[in-house]
Amino acid sequence: MKLMRVGPRGMERPAVMDDHGQIRDISGHVPDFDAFSMVPESLDAVRALKLSSMPVIAPGTRIGPCLAAVPNFYCIGLNYARHAEEAGMAKPTEPIVFSKATTALAGPDDPVILPAGADKADWEVELGVVIGRAAFRVSEAEALSHVAGYCVVNDLSERAYQMDRGGQWIKGKSLPGFGPVGPWMVTADEVADPQDLRLTLALNDVQVQDSTTADMIFTVAQIVSHLSQFMQLVPGDLIATGTPSGVGMGMRPQRFLRPGDVMELGIEGLGRQRQVVLAG
Amino acid sequence: MKLMRVGPRGMERPAVMDDHGQIRDISGHVPDFDAFSMVPESLDAVRALKLSSMPVIAPGTRIGPCLAAVPNFYCIGLNYARHAEEAGMAKPTEPIVFSKATTALAGPDDPVILPAGADKADWEVELGVVIGRAAFRVSEAEALSHVAGYCVVNDLSERAYQMDRGGQWIKGKSLPGFGPVGPWMVTADEVADPQDLRLTLALNDVQVQDSTTADMIFTVAQIVSHLSQFMQLVPGDLIATGTPSGVGMGMRPQRFLRPGDVMELGIEGLGRQRQVVLAG
Repeated sequence: MKLMRVGPRGMERPAVMDDHGQIRDISGHVPDFDAFSMVPESLDAVRALKLSSMPVIAPGTRIGPCLAAVPNFYCIGLNYARHAEEAGMAKPTEPIVFSKATTALAGPDDPVILPAGADKADWEVELGVVIGRAAFRVSEAEALSHVAGYCVVNDLSERAYQMDRGGQWIKGKSLPGFGPVGPWMVTADEVADPQDLRLTLALNDVQVQDSTTADMIFTVAQIVSHLSQFMQLVPGDLIATGTPSGVGMGMRPQRFLRPGDVMELGIEGLGRQRQVVLAG
Repeated sequence: MKLMRVGPRGMERPAVMDDHGQIRDISGHVPDFDAFSMVPESLDAVRALKLSSMPVIAPGTRIGPCLAAVPNFYCIGLNYARHAEEAGMAKPTEPIVFSKATTALAGPDDPVILPAGADKADWEVELGVVIGRAAFRVSEAEALSHVAGYCVVNDLSERAYQMDRGGQWIKGKSLPGFGPVGPWMVTADEVADPQDLRLTLALNDVQVQDSTTADMIFTVAQIVSHLSQFMQLVPGDLIATGTPSGVGMGMRPQRFLRPGDVMELGIEGLGRQRQVVLAG
């Protein structure tokens, strides 16, 4: 099942893509895809809806972030060995955890706006994991049973804010719109193996990131279990699981986002995003 | 105005303390003190309620965190010079920003539970600032007009998780219940000067923290303005503004929380918290 939210910013309605690729408005049955609707019972209720009787969303309607009111937007740093290398940092011995402001959330195709001084903005295609059942101190073996689904995340980063402004990365990860999510969340039952997904990102039609989740240092199950040692994960929490090599910070010379740049990114089976960069 | 939430965990009702110290249930008029209810118009609507006609909450009813569904729980690190010293760290040249999991939120008198391995848990009394109007790139002069109110926060920290587990502090700040908030939020109109508030914390009846917000390195206005350079602050966001000296990490020998310990903390005009430490 592919869960979406469509409509103007802040007024998105929940929708489901049917087997024919049509987006069906289910707002008559579900208020929104918030934390509560990520629990297994709520997803089952959506599954039971007769989609063919739901209104079709007009093509061209804006797609919003596939999740509303995310309780926490966690990220894992340096989770692909070659990305740690290109960043000039040691390969981590356990997951590095930081967070993005929840106000960074954006639709998959919303423009990315660079406010004044954001001169080192960078792209990061990542597998997003959405929590469906509360998890505290769960084992690796149990971890995936707490996952509601998966989605594409662009963990946009302003490198100077991230690295040079006090040492905690959140400052460089949180500008408004620096967290495009979607176009949809695919429920976990339809993702055969989260460690076998190709993820790619092209900048102005040049492929710069091309890897697979098989190359993660820490698997999704390890990440969920590890996070749950330190905090209680709750339904609707979103975890961006790290980016492979090919970011602008790793290029020689370094290459950061400029107005007019276009990012196109996607993960096998989870859909594609496209963002135009604009001056703020 | 003193805004509270009372009742069993997860079922708290909004309430207001009246001029006679009685807690009045206003759940018939306001669904909860969530993000939406922190905007000036919503606070004015609460102000207009005739409290004397509202039901009185029975004494002894549990007090919950004074905010529901906090969009982001930000913290400022090392914001008092002597605390930076005792932590063995340099005095920051700009605010250090990190976050706590929103699932760390707890009531002011809820027990603090130490799960297995949390052997270096530490206390931190802090002034909490609640955002009432969205703020992006606001000036210091404008900043306080975006504040809805103030509250007491105990920014409980597990020092080994904070310092030795990858460098990003969130891991040590986010255990369930490691963010007691309240007993109430005092609206900004009733706090004459947020930089002139005494804050204290006693461990087992021995005063260990005793300072004033006059000693902050960065003022509330500077913090709100600074944060808003990197992220959009939104109504309901909570910012813990740093702790003064006197934490366990700074003692020689170091002294961390053990089952049976009792923390009593408070800020002048903002009420008091009391937490008993329990084994997990």
